[in-house]
Amino acid sequence: MSAAPTSPTPVLPFDPADPVALTQALVRCPSVTPEEGGALALLAAVLSAEGYDVHRPVFSEPGTPDVENLYARIGSTAPVFVIAGHTDVVPVGDEAAWTREPFGGAIENGTLYGRGACDMKGGLAAMVAAAIRYGRDNPDAPGSIAFLVTGDEEGPSVNGTVKLLAWAHERGERFDHCILGEPTNPATMSDMIKIGRRGSLTGKLTVQGTQGHVGYPHLADNPIRGMVRLLAALDATPLDGGTQHFDPSNLEVTTLDVGNPATNVIPAQAKAAFNIRFNDTWTPETLAAELERRLHEAAGNQVRYTLEVQPTNAVAFLTEPGPFVAIVADAIEAETGKRPALSTTGGTSDARFIKNYCPVVEYGVVGKTMHQIDESVAVADLVALERITHRLITSYFAAHRQA
Amino acid sequence: MSAAPTSPTPVLPFDPADPVALTQALVRCPSVTPEEGGALALLAAVLSAEGYDVHRPVFSEPGTPDVENLYARIGSTAPVFVIAGHTDVVPVGDEAAWTREPFGGAIENGTLYGRGACDMKGGLAAMVAAAIRYGRDNPDAPGSIAFLVTGDEEGPSVNGTVKLLAWAHERGERFDHCILGEPTNPATMSDMIKIGRRGSLTGKLTVQGTQGHVGYPHLADNPIRGMVRLLAALDATPLDGGTQHFDPSNLEVTTLDVGNPATNVIPAQAKAAFNIRFNDTWTPETLAAELERRLHEAAGNQVRYTLEVQPTNAVAFLTEPGPFVAIVADAIEAETGKRPALSTTGGTSDARFIKNYCPVVEYGVVGKTMHQIDESVAVADLVALERITHRLITSYFAAHRQA
Repeated sequence: MSAAPTSPTPVLPFDPADPVALTQALVRCPSVTPEEGGALALLAAVLSAEGYDVHRPVFSEPGTPDVENLYARIGSTAPVFVIAGHTDVVPVGDEAAWTREPFGGAIENGTLYGRGACDMKGGLAAMVAAAIRYGRDNPDAPGSIAFLVTGDEEGPSVNGTVKLLAWAHERGERFDHCILGEPTNPATMSDMIKIGRRGSLTGKLTVQGTQGHVGYPHLADNPIRGMVRLLAALDATPLDGGTQHFDPSNLEVTTLDVGNPATNVIPAQAKAAFNIRFNDTWTPETLAAELERRLHEAAGNQVRYTLEVQPTNAVAFLTEPGPFVAIVADAIEAETGKRPALSTTGGTSDARFIKNYCPVVEYGVVGKTMHQIDESVAVADLVALERITHRLITSYFAAHRQA
Repeated sequence: MSAAPTSPTPVLPFDPADPVALTQALVRCPSVTPEEGGALALLAAVLSAEGYDVHRPVFSEPGTPDVENLYARIGSTAPVFVIAGHTDVVPVGDEAAWTREPFGGAIENGTLYGRGACDMKGGLAAMVAAAIRYGRDNPDAPGSIAFLVTGDEEGPSVNGTVKLLAWAHERGERFDHCILGEPTNPATMSDMIKIGRRGSLTGKLTVQGTQGHVGYPHLADNPIRGMVRLLAALDATPLDGGTQHFDPSNLEVTTLDVGNPATNVIPAQAKAAFNIRFNDTWTPETLAAELERRLHEAAGNQVRYTLEVQPTNAVAFLTEPGPFVAIVADAIEAETGKRPALSTTGGTSDARFIKNYCPVVEYGVVGKTMHQIDESVAVADLVALERITHRLITSYFAAHRQA
């Protein structure tokens, strides 16, 4: 680490080493994707004041809004421990239904309320606070801490982490391990680390029939009959039985649309969409081939269908349990008294981009209220996460010094 | 029959005993449901001039347009032979796609073009012409001929034949047999008499699930999975194997609607509609009970569904083959050289109302172009139908005199 001032930046009315005050300050920034809302500027000021080298690249892509990002690093030597996260939040929704100001950060009875409180300004703030405390206490320690923070995680995820990683790599930045502060815990802080994510594949299925009158079915070909047959075939046999660290792959049909208002007319076409969350049994390519095999077999010569599999970068990945995962689990167990589960459940996250650069695990606060009205985080959990992260950083660099 | 003038009404520039000229005149009336378009006025003038007692009742019902109808009768004694039909037509559709004037009645190469040419102004005109010829030639014959003509067959069918029958019955009119001039022939004039119709039952099926994220399927309940299961169960076993005069009952799912644009969201609800054309194995009540039995069995305790069966007056009915059906078939065979099939296929028609008053069979021109762009009828078929109907009327009354 390079030398850092030991007192907070004078422009802030609070100490950013306080995870609760920093969470409140971030929640008060209305950073609904793609708006920066002051959140990245706040982090930039905080981290600069602590001696971090801070960059604020803006990324663009035709058809999507420009998005601001933040990269900050302290220290110039390996290993580089990365803390990743996002400051953007989903929209407030029905504001009238909130019982507290969505961007107010009010604390009542030990709970801090506001959009992004748990997903994931709280987690990010606790980790920033922990890194600051570690940096202040260990100004001359070897190794580096880097922050990868985006404003495009809840949106299209096009001008965010994926480009920030490429940008940093281009600049010669090399990362050793990463923790992503998404809210991974279902109920308590000792519940769950995510050591991988399933992949996601979306398919659009169209069955072509021949329109006609229901009274003359022999002159028509009802595409719904074929669609029901194909969907039943897709779902008839499990895709797999799960793997060591993954649940079985799962297919959900998300819509079915014909849109024929006339009950005496056999329609010409039926459309469906489905999404598969798949484990490391499959790549998107092998999975698409299996779907085609099932459809082809079920269709026989009777059902005319087309399957369009949407390109995806959401492949299944796993950070194999090993020393790094153990350090994270140890820190959680030391602070909470309970060892967390190693999970690969849930949706996708920016970890799918980070894993191409270094091993990544995800851990944060309790996610129960994420994206909901009256989103909140327990103050005690912010304090716990700051301690866990501080212990994790300390152990991480200690382990590297021993190695 | 009562005495009738032997010359055409002087206001018409053609002889209404000419089926081709009368078809042209009717086609030139733009009588798209519920517009009368001059068609019933024309028939009223024609039939009055031939000595018919003509009535033009208008029927109303809240929520539907008022519709004009025509009842005409010549003769005061039994038996009463009824000719039924409609003068309303379906809309023109894409007028630019027509190669002839939709309401022009142009004749080219032996084909008469126009909306309603085959469904069913042509059939009705040929039968009117035949009745006129018979009346002119047999002014003092016993028995009666009655016309039941509506302007509400292609529309809601609420202010049409069903009310016209009740109206006539109320006035003391009693009918012995009826021919309905719908276009029953698939390709040639000797193809098909309809001696009954299947019933029609529409069901709306809703499956209730629990919305959620595709990444957390255990927290959601995908209604599409249940819908696919229920629809497969409805279709798994034939409803019946057909009966002596009917094809097997047939179920067609006509729409399936979820309307969920988000491929990462499991939807809350799925809706489907289906229509069953059923034979005399079933009443609407027994069929609805069978559907409920199948759904209940397939749903088990897993699928939450509701089935709404729409009330229907379209029950299956049959005019048992016997002397009346034989007279119709004989007339066709005598004029065409080939005996027609006795069928119960196709959609519903106003015969479902008439059968409550007297035995009814349906026979008319070739229906190949009905409801289509460039709807047409062969001039030769109009001439043939006039001859067949004339022979039929003659045989009908002769048979009653012998009996």
